[in-house]
Amino acid sequence: MSLNDVQHQTHKWISQFKEGYWQPHEILARLTEEVGELAREINHQFGPKIKKTTEDTNEIGDEMADIIFTLSCLANSLNIDLDESFKRTISKSYSRDNQRFEKK
Amino acid sequence: MSLNDVQHQTHKWISQFKEGYWQPHEILARLTEEVGELAREINHQFGPKIKKTTEDTNEIGDEMADIIFTLSCLANSLNIDLDESFKRTISKSYSRDNQRFEKK
Amino acid sequence: MSLNDVQHQTHKWISQFKEGYWQPHEILARLTEEVGELAREINHQFGPKIKKTTEDTNEIGDEMADIIFTLSCLANSLNIDLDESFKRTISKSYSRDNQRFEKK
Amino acid sequence: MSLNDVQHQTHKWISQFKEGYWQPHEILARLTEEVGELAREINHQFGPKIKKTTEDTNEIGDEMADIIFTLSCLANSLNIDLDESFKRTISKSYSRDNQRFEKK
Repeated sequence: MSLNDVQHQTHKWISQFKEGYWQPHEILARLTEEVGELAREINHQFGPKIKKTTEDTNEIGDEMADIIFTLSCLANSLNIDLDESFKRTISKSYSRDNQRFEKK
Repeated sequence: MSLNDVQHQTHKWISQFKEGYWQPHEILARLTEEVGELAREINHQFGPKIKKTTEDTNEIGDEMADIIFTLSCLANSLNIDLDESFKRTISKSYSRDNQRFEKK
Repeated sequence: MSLNDVQHQTHKWISQFKEGYWQPHEILARLTEEVGELAREINHQFGPKIKKTTEDTNEIGDEMADIIFTLSCLANSLNIDLDESFKRTISKSYSRDNQRFEKK
Repeated sequence: MSLNDVQHQTHKWISQFKEGYWQPHEILARLTEEVGELAREINHQFGPKIKKTTEDTNEIGDEMADIIFTLSCLANSLNIDLDESFKRTISKSYSRDNQRFEKK
């Protein structure tokens, strides 16, 4: 599934409902909530709390998928192309940060 | 670019360096930092501060791309397949949340 | 209750248990989780979701208290005096940011 | 300085300016930004990046003070008494979570 497909699937889901996309600040609050849920999972599996019997990375994956869905809502509502943004970021990294860390 | 490509491009970048992937809590802290930078941009463009002369959604897109890159680092370091997680999430939404909101 | 009392009450609570204070990254993850819960409450009461029957700011206050408790754990574990830090911040604001916004 | 003083000092600062308090979602976005700055400091001092020459916990304290200031703005704008909320939280912990962890 491409980043474009992610945005398209998100739009297909949202456009079923009357409510439509939320305002940017509301989507950001939702993103903050989802990142909090990922943080709880990270502390559950790698932190100080009593460990789960099975190391279930599925739950961490699900929290990350919720974050991607929320980002995709924000991107759609602002007409941002995440594929283009990601390519620009990677390309900037190669030209700018390439000498920042010690190479193998 | 597919979610698999995103994870592959991230791995290609990271594996150039001796440092490798950080620990889950360290990547989570970085994610928190990146979400904070997105929050600053949202307040700049849609919030109470003095508006920028041009509505530059590129910067918001770039912050989102940094979040996706950081998520991709976490996924790679834990062998999580984001494509699979995202498909599972969307599919769960259709079976579970389909009646939660008012349809068009 | 003073900020010193807050830190002292927090310490009294934590020092009952064998576990003691967590590592800084673990406390930060907990803080991220608590901020996420505040974000959920903000969206519940001021956002797009169906409004609660009573506007219950108590719940928002409780989430803020959880954030203060978590900050206080981090401060205690690093021997940081929040009272001193807060006074320094306010004092810096008066000398630095005083002309940044339009006065009444 | 008591939590009431913190809220009073915050109000004294804010009420100098025409702008006044922001909307809850805008203050939350600012909180997210401040938590991100704390996360950056935690990674600087305890994380994978090159360590600073001096362990400067002052900077961590300053980021925490910024978070407390932002919480205090939110509390003031919603007429929430943080002192009361904190006392309620501690008191609930003693009645509810007292047996949750292993005692010393």
